[in-house]
Amino acid sequence: MSETPSPSAARTVVVAAALELFAQQGFEATSVEQIARAAGVSRSTFFRQFGGKEDVVFADHEILLADLRTWLERGHENPWVAVCEATERVFRHFASDPKVARRRYEIVRQVPALRDREIVTVFRYERLFDEYLRSALPGIDPLDAVGFAALVTALHNHVLRRLLRGTKRVPLSELQAALDGALRRYGVHPDPAPPAADDVVIAVFPRATPAAEVARRIRSSLD
Amino acid sequence: MSETPSPSAARTVVVAAALELFAQQGFEATSVEQIARAAGVSRSTFFRQFGGKEDVVFADHEILLADLRTWLERGHENPWVAVCEATERVFRHFASDPKVARRRYEIVRQVPALRDREIVTVFRYERLFDEYLRSALPGIDPLDAVGFAALVTALHNHVLRRLLRGTKRVPLSELQAALDGALRRYGVHPDPAPPAADDVVIAVFPRATPAAEVARRIRSSLD
Repeated sequence: MSETPSPSAARTVVVAAALELFAQQGFEATSVEQIARAAGVSRSTFFRQFGGKEDVVFADHEILLADLRTWLERGHENPWVAVCEATERVFRHFASDPKVARRRYEIVRQVPALRDREIVTVFRYERLFDEYLRSALPGIDPLDAVGFAALVTALHNHVLRRLLRGTKRVPLSELQAALDGALRRYGVHPDPAPPAADDVVIAVFPRATPAAEVARRIRSSLD
Repeated sequence: MSETPSPSAARTVVVAAALELFAQQGFEATSVEQIARAAGVSRSTFFRQFGGKEDVVFADHEILLADLRTWLERGHENPWVAVCEATERVFRHFASDPKVARRRYEIVRQVPALRDREIVTVFRYERLFDEYLRSALPGIDPLDAVGFAALVTALHNHVLRRLLRGTKRVPLSELQAALDGALRRYGVHPDPAPPAADDVVIAVFPRATPAAEVARRIRSSLD
């Protein structure tokens, strides 16, 4: 029984072969013919899968954007948190195979047209989140949707870029801490805020309580 | 005495002529020759001023980005506020001639390559603000620089787009209110925060004060 690889598996093979060639000999110097040959597919198969060489580099984003759209539309209790979780899904995808992700990043960095296309691609996430917030939270101030989408996307990109630029592991918790901060800035974090440095403490004691006892009780309740 | 227009005034004439032609007959259908003829300059003068047709559409952004960079580098007491003021400068520029700004917006909207280039251009403002915050505030958490730059840029773009899409005046105060919100979310607003909806009010009265008098005093001090 001969096995036909699934369309997405077949695409993955082509992407891997292309990135390998781009890294070895440069993006410009690599032809579609060379990619097709290295991946063991025909030229026409390549063009059925991808519009061109550039599309190979951004194939993951196309899949991720479609996945996130479906996932977001499923409905979520807290749409602000859902947007944050969506960026965690993107991060986890690239962090699961940092070698390939870093190779892709290096190629993009070296070709101005690819850098521009990446900026445009990133903006599609931001717009997806903005549109999702407006549809999931009717009556939301559009400025809040626009602002939160931009903030979360920028935080995600910054943490992801740290992973792509370096050689060390960047844990998901680093992104989560940044996203927690964004949720708090917008006052939409599901957990109650931890005590802030400028919180006011109100303590009432009978007038007769000795000062030392007042101090002890306050310290123990703050601890 | 014959007057030679300044380089920037000469560019403005070419930009206006080009936008007029793009609006009349479409971006693709307009040639550099037609633009040069309409502006009363030679083809070679056009190419000394602009790299190509696309660059005419984004000429203002190039000038604005260079101006903002110089202005930011001048040094500002509160760098967070300076970033906000920088976006106000951009807004004021386009709001000063909304007819031309709207014409440009219509052209960009209709040509996918121009839309992409606009996204890339907008990102240059975001990066400029990010880099400025990091240099003006050594030791700043990069996530705060990245996040604030993205938030402020997104808020500005949203308010500017309302101006470009509509036919009505959008006052600068609308942008300023959004920027005030961003400064407060980051806890960097120069003015003390106005009473928030969830502020705690502490009032102490002698036990004997009648309830109506307590209510009156509280109301008058809240008003």
